[in-house]
Amino acid sequence: MQQIDRVVHARWIAPVRPAGGRLHNHAVAIDQGRIIDVLPSAEVESRYTPKSTLHRDHHLLVPGFVNAHTHAAMNLMRGIANDKPLKPWLTENIWPLESEQVSAAFVADGTDLAIAEMLRGGTTCFNDMYYFPDIAAERAVAAGIRASIGLIVIDFPTVWAAHADEYLDKGLAVHDQFKSQSRIQTMLAPHAPYTVSDAPLEKIRTYADELDLHIHMHVHETAGEISESLEQHGQRPFARLDTLGLVNPNLVAVHMTQLTDAEIARASECGIHVVHSPESNLKLASGLCPSQALKNAGVSLGLGTDGAASNNDLDMIGEMRSAALSGKVAADNAVAANADDILEMATLGGARALDLDSRTGSIEPGKAADLCAIDLERIETIPVYDPVAALVYSASREQVTDTWVDGQHLLADRRLTTLNEAEILFRAHGWQEKLAHYAR
Amino acid sequence: MQQIDRVVHARWIAPVRPAGGRLHNHAVAIDQGRIIDVLPSAEVESRYTPKSTLHRDHHLLVPGFVNAHTHAAMNLMRGIANDKPLKPWLTENIWPLESEQVSAAFVADGTDLAIAEMLRGGTTCFNDMYYFPDIAAERAVAAGIRASIGLIVIDFPTVWAAHADEYLDKGLAVHDQFKSQSRIQTMLAPHAPYTVSDAPLEKIRTYADELDLHIHMHVHETAGEISESLEQHGQRPFARLDTLGLVNPNLVAVHMTQLTDAEIARASECGIHVVHSPESNLKLASGLCPSQALKNAGVSLGLGTDGAASNNDLDMIGEMRSAALSGKVAADNAVAANADDILEMATLGGARALDLDSRTGSIEPGKAADLCAIDLERIETIPVYDPVAALVYSASREQVTDTWVDGQHLLADRRLTTLNEAEILFRAHGWQEKLAHYAR
Repeated sequence: MQQIDRVVHARWIAPVRPAGGRLHNHAVAIDQGRIIDVLPSAEVESRYTPKSTLHRDHHLLVPGFVNAHTHAAMNLMRGIANDKPLKPWLTENIWPLESEQVSAAFVADGTDLAIAEMLRGGTTCFNDMYYFPDIAAERAVAAGIRASIGLIVIDFPTVWAAHADEYLDKGLAVHDQFKSQSRIQTMLAPHAPYTVSDAPLEKIRTYADELDLHIHMHVHETAGEISESLEQHGQRPFARLDTLGLVNPNLVAVHMTQLTDAEIARASECGIHVVHSPESNLKLASGLCPSQALKNAGVSLGLGTDGAASNNDLDMIGEMRSAALSGKVAADNAVAANADDILEMATLGGARALDLDSRTGSIEPGKAADLCAIDLERIETIPVYDPVAALVYSASREQVTDTWVDGQHLLADRRLTTLNEAEILFRAHGWQEKLAHYAR
Repeated sequence: MQQIDRVVHARWIAPVRPAGGRLHNHAVAIDQGRIIDVLPSAEVESRYTPKSTLHRDHHLLVPGFVNAHTHAAMNLMRGIANDKPLKPWLTENIWPLESEQVSAAFVADGTDLAIAEMLRGGTTCFNDMYYFPDIAAERAVAAGIRASIGLIVIDFPTVWAAHADEYLDKGLAVHDQFKSQSRIQTMLAPHAPYTVSDAPLEKIRTYADELDLHIHMHVHETAGEISESLEQHGQRPFARLDTLGLVNPNLVAVHMTQLTDAEIARASECGIHVVHSPESNLKLASGLCPSQALKNAGVSLGLGTDGAASNNDLDMIGEMRSAALSGKVAADNAVAANADDILEMATLGGARALDLDSRTGSIEPGKAADLCAIDLERIETIPVYDPVAALVYSASREQVTDTWVDGQHLLADRRLTTLNEAEILFRAHGWQEKLAHYAR
């Protein structure tokens, strides 16, 4: 008999590894933040003496979701402008607001709001890209969520830095500052091919090699980005990144719409990661990422919500549904983007993109106990013929009852244990008053 | 001072008429099931003495949603088979189950489950098409929801009837049976061009004219339907219906993917109604209805979830989001399918399709008090820069707190007042056991 910290019993477990697996009436044994066993509930008593036991009898237990692309602090800009294409949305609404209003306090409050939303929706890890990454990292530490913090780089001056070198210097300082935080890591985050010139991109490639960091970047978000690049550089953005040596397994390319077959083949050959953000691409009419074609070519895919300003939420269950539904139409095939593939994209695929797949993304002994329980015994989800299909096609974020990171119970029966919801709402209202006049 | 039944105060009201309207801190005055006034909350006390007053201080009040296309009883087949195209999904899973398992008891229990789901999600009226329409109508009467019951006609024998004439005879008997029920109406419901031949379609046209009934029909659901029709009839299905005299303001054509410009122009010229069911079309990879092009041509659009077997829920808020997001990509324009147009599609547009727009679909004096309140003061929806955008792009069905039909409070602070949730769940489990082996 082994003394351990905790056992969680569930009606169903979808461990993601093995792929397509379903366990019925099983339990996860957790000790010191790690999964030490996954076994039939009936066998727990004869093997373990847990300090605490939780029964989730109507629930599906899955790996916590990995939101592989977001701008957490932008939660304060949720729905600040809608029904506009990317370019005017950025230049008329987002960028003016950002240059006049974004501050450390803004990032702190916006990130808290985003983390609260993500934990309530079963997300245990997020890949961020925004100004004041040090503040975002601090808020993640305080809340206990796992985070990959992007060290943003842009050519032009913003509230965070004046020029590419300053972004890099400040970013590397943030990298050093959070080295000892086990739930925080950093990634280099050049914003996009159209906002970062060759010289800083070459430096970023060098730093990525030296520090073994992944590179988080918007790539091929719109058709306009591609035609502009052809005019300015004589190359499509992905080809330009390739020329600069960035197309390699460190690259986490977000969006990737408008891909040619040759680009898909090259993405596969070079082992890059692609993050699919269907709702943002749909909302801004940017086009669709050919997720099934990428998968067929062997490219690893993660899933991200993008920021709340263009989505307008950080709901990974909703994003899975949109990825499945839009993936079928994009592939012109109802068999494409099936529920198991989509769940993997939302968990292990994202973990791979973040180079965290040895620690999170599946329910396997040795991995961190990053978990999420979803109550499927609801009018909206019964009958349940298959729990993973129920999750992807019927469930909603409010059915998430519990979220754990490293075995820490951050959402317990719908209650946030490390964040003060009333305080977060109060602060968001304060910002809403300040920002309302940008909402046009 | 006028004595009235009820006043509902709300932080915001989106009345749908006038289009795009927003009222802040207003109230709806209700008497004898009808809206008698919409006025500033501050003025209520000086004009009305209500028997009951409800404050919804963090809520958006909208017209109850009109689910303009569903197969309610199919809720028992939620997720019975996923990730399959329409044809094998029908022939391998749905039709065998239907011929062996569907009965009056099945339709009663499935319809109860569907009505519970719809009321919990703010739907106050649904347009149904299924076997045993008399049972569906009975369940709607018992629950108090408004319903338009399709009198289904198919060429081949099913559990409900043996041949087209029997379907028609039984359907017309159902029409007579429910004439006195004010919340129930019937529509003729030939299943689809590929399942109903010319002779019964001509009879249906005659009955529609004589009885002034709308015709609820799947039209142009898939590309395969069109090529088969070309082979068999030498005409596209829409053209064949036109030849048969069915393309007129009585026609409620559901799906309408694969439309040519000439078909869109003809749809407009003849004043037909189109019901958009984006999630079902996406899930079965059937293609997309060109909703914005239809709207631009002046065609009135409703929104429907389709049955839970191909969606897999009856969530009109989620369907609005899918209609907005997919509508932008279909139109290649982020300005298309804007939040106000989508809300109209989900309310007044559906009411028009059902010939019920003089009674429901907008918050205006004289109309029935068919209403829905959504709590937007949640981590997932704040800040709220625009309540309609928050509803369409951020809110979820669980934020619906109250639903009224004819002023009757059918969902009161998340509690169903006319249905027994535990009993509905219990019965659904019984069916799940019986049906599980069709889930392959």
